[in-house]
Amino acid sequence: MEDEHDYRVLSIQSHVVSGYCGNKAAVFPLQTLGFDVDILNTVQFSNHTGYPSWTGSKMTADQVQELFDGLEANGLTDDYTHILTGYIGNYSILEKVENMVRKLKSKNPKLIYVCDTVMGDEGALYVAPEIVPLYRNILRFVDVVTPNQFEAELLSEMKISSLKDACTAASKLHDLGAPNVIITTLCVPLVDVPKDIQLESSSDQSLYCFTSQTLPDGSIEQHLISFPTYPAYFTGTGDLFSSLVVARLQESINASVIPSLSDAAYRVVCSVNAIAKNTWLHQQKKIENLQDIKSKPDAAKITRQCELQLIKGKKEIECPERVGLGVIKKTRISQP
Amino acid sequence: MEDEHDYRVLSIQSHVVSGYCGNKAAVFPLQTLGFDVDILNTVQFSNHTGYPSWTGSKMTADQVQELFDGLEANGLTDDYTHILTGYIGNYSILEKVENMVRKLKSKNPKLIYVCDTVMGDEGALYVAPEIVPLYRNILRFVDVVTPNQFEAELLSEMKISSLKDACTAASKLHDLGAPNVIITTLCVPLVDVPKDIQLESSSDQSLYCFTSQTLPDGSIEQHLISFPTYPAYFTGTGDLFSSLVVARLQESINASVIPSLSDAAYRVVCSVNAIAKNTWLHQQKKIENLQDIKSKPDAAKITRQCELQLIKGKKEIECPERVGLGVIKKTRISQP
Repeated sequence: MEDEHDYRVLSIQSHVVSGYCGNKAAVFPLQTLGFDVDILNTVQFSNHTGYPSWTGSKMTADQVQELFDGLEANGLTDDYTHILTGYIGNYSILEKVENMVRKLKSKNPKLIYVCDTVMGDEGALYVAPEIVPLYRNILRFVDVVTPNQFEAELLSEMKISSLKDACTAASKLHDLGAPNVIITTLCVPLVDVPKDIQLESSSDQSLYCFTSQTLPDGSIEQHLISFPTYPAYFTGTGDLFSSLVVARLQESINASVIPSLSDAAYRVVCSVNAIAKNTWLHQQKKIENLQDIKSKPDAAKITRQCELQLIKGKKEIECPERVGLGVIKKTRISQP
Repeated sequence: MEDEHDYRVLSIQSHVVSGYCGNKAAVFPLQTLGFDVDILNTVQFSNHTGYPSWTGSKMTADQVQELFDGLEANGLTDDYTHILTGYIGNYSILEKVENMVRKLKSKNPKLIYVCDTVMGDEGALYVAPEIVPLYRNILRFVDVVTPNQFEAELLSEMKISSLKDACTAASKLHDLGAPNVIITTLCVPLVDVPKDIQLESSSDQSLYCFTSQTLPDGSIEQHLISFPTYPAYFTGTGDLFSSLVVARLQESINASVIPSLSDAAYRVVCSVNAIAKNTWLHQQKKIENLQDIKSKPDAAKITRQCELQLIKGKKEIECPERVGLGVIKKTRISQP
């Protein structure tokens, strides 16, 4: 009989020797929370592409498949409890991944697939356009999808300009097959935001995390989570975010007959925000001209000081509530 | 100014998607203890080669060099505090690594190089014979070398049949340039072992860990550490061991003007032994025919249940003394 807590995650993402993004950002948090992680690296780069240069190689779809086949030949794909995917810029690899998910779900119908549909940000697409409909198709197999606002727009094929739009877009992603949707960063007009979670802000727009969950009775429960922002340059926070969704959703499943996506997301936001804050403080201490970090920095030295303070964030990963209480708040949007 | 605890390790080892050996065994312990680890993977295999089959690819020496060059181009090799190397079966890669160590030491003269000279075990060499003299040469740049008994014999060019032999062999490795030597598993006749650390044993031979350290006055301090053994099949314990040497030696350096290799090794043995015990208990629970695990198992299913219980060993990594006290003992061999 399987132990209550024998969790095995297959995480398919990129790898950088130095710094934190892709699997380098996703694996440590999961391991810290007790999850065994099988690490399938789709690329091997010296560092992330925010640096002036990088070296290394990308795997072909056949090489990725070959590694999966090697696992399968040894029965190592029989009992995955979770699969996590992040940035996969290659259409052929993403097609293979779709088949892997299908296969893993047939071996373990309870397998949870957390899919971070990394395609772009702030209006700019950084994958081939044909990746978009493929992800839309993959949503049929997804348990949690974690797009940013732009990616949610691409998947739902609508512009999100208000909280109402976000609710509608999330419903569309539910219709495509994903029972749980987390729009990780949502920028909406302040008038849309319930008073009790409004943050002090100099602008008339605010940044939030939005969750939408289909309940067993078919109804949809939606929450908005507010969190403070920091004027820093971040890489890998999205990968950290989706990895923690795996762990916190599992906790919620263990705790309740009807797991709460918003509770899970709240705990994720607490950890990610605490690490983001530490990263911002580190940048303030290390970088002389703080103006430099408000946009993508050019010099390798600055970029390096901007790397996520992930390893020093172990406590923040282990104890999210401690760091979040009083600063990060959630409120229900949908009618109870 | 660099923070007191900004440690950055470059770890050059193999990578397996599933299971624990090479970097998969070395990185998590270091990260858990607060070390940033740059992970340079020399191979990408689906699983370790103790399974019936495996897939994946090995990097060429040029590909490894290219990744290092990519780091260097971004100034990311300027401030490594540690370098850790494990199994490198390829002569050309090991030559490149020698040059990398030389370069990193010129950039940071305080850089600590922990070298696990993985070449074979129990009389069997599993690398090309020309690797042996290359490692002997590399000892000039090494701060700690962690051979097993067979590897210590290869490096010192002498047979180790007694504790006295071990002392002599270690002195030879000091002469080759390594100020700190840890023979990770030493099998010596019971008559050699001081009474206060003798373990109950049905045989007339016992397994120990042996440390030898050159002190600032030129004298050599040598210790023997006793630990219980378990009749299980282990993979990756050596990689776990050498990674913890990095962390525990650094602690010892921080704590004292003359760091104690034996104190560091004692704490390493405590953690490794606790995780080995948990792995043995897991094997007992999961494998029906315990006879199967006393030798290298054939079936993938059994091999998989033999994987190191590393992730569940977080507490044992964080708090080594708690688990070791009373069971694991060390005694001084050299005259004070």
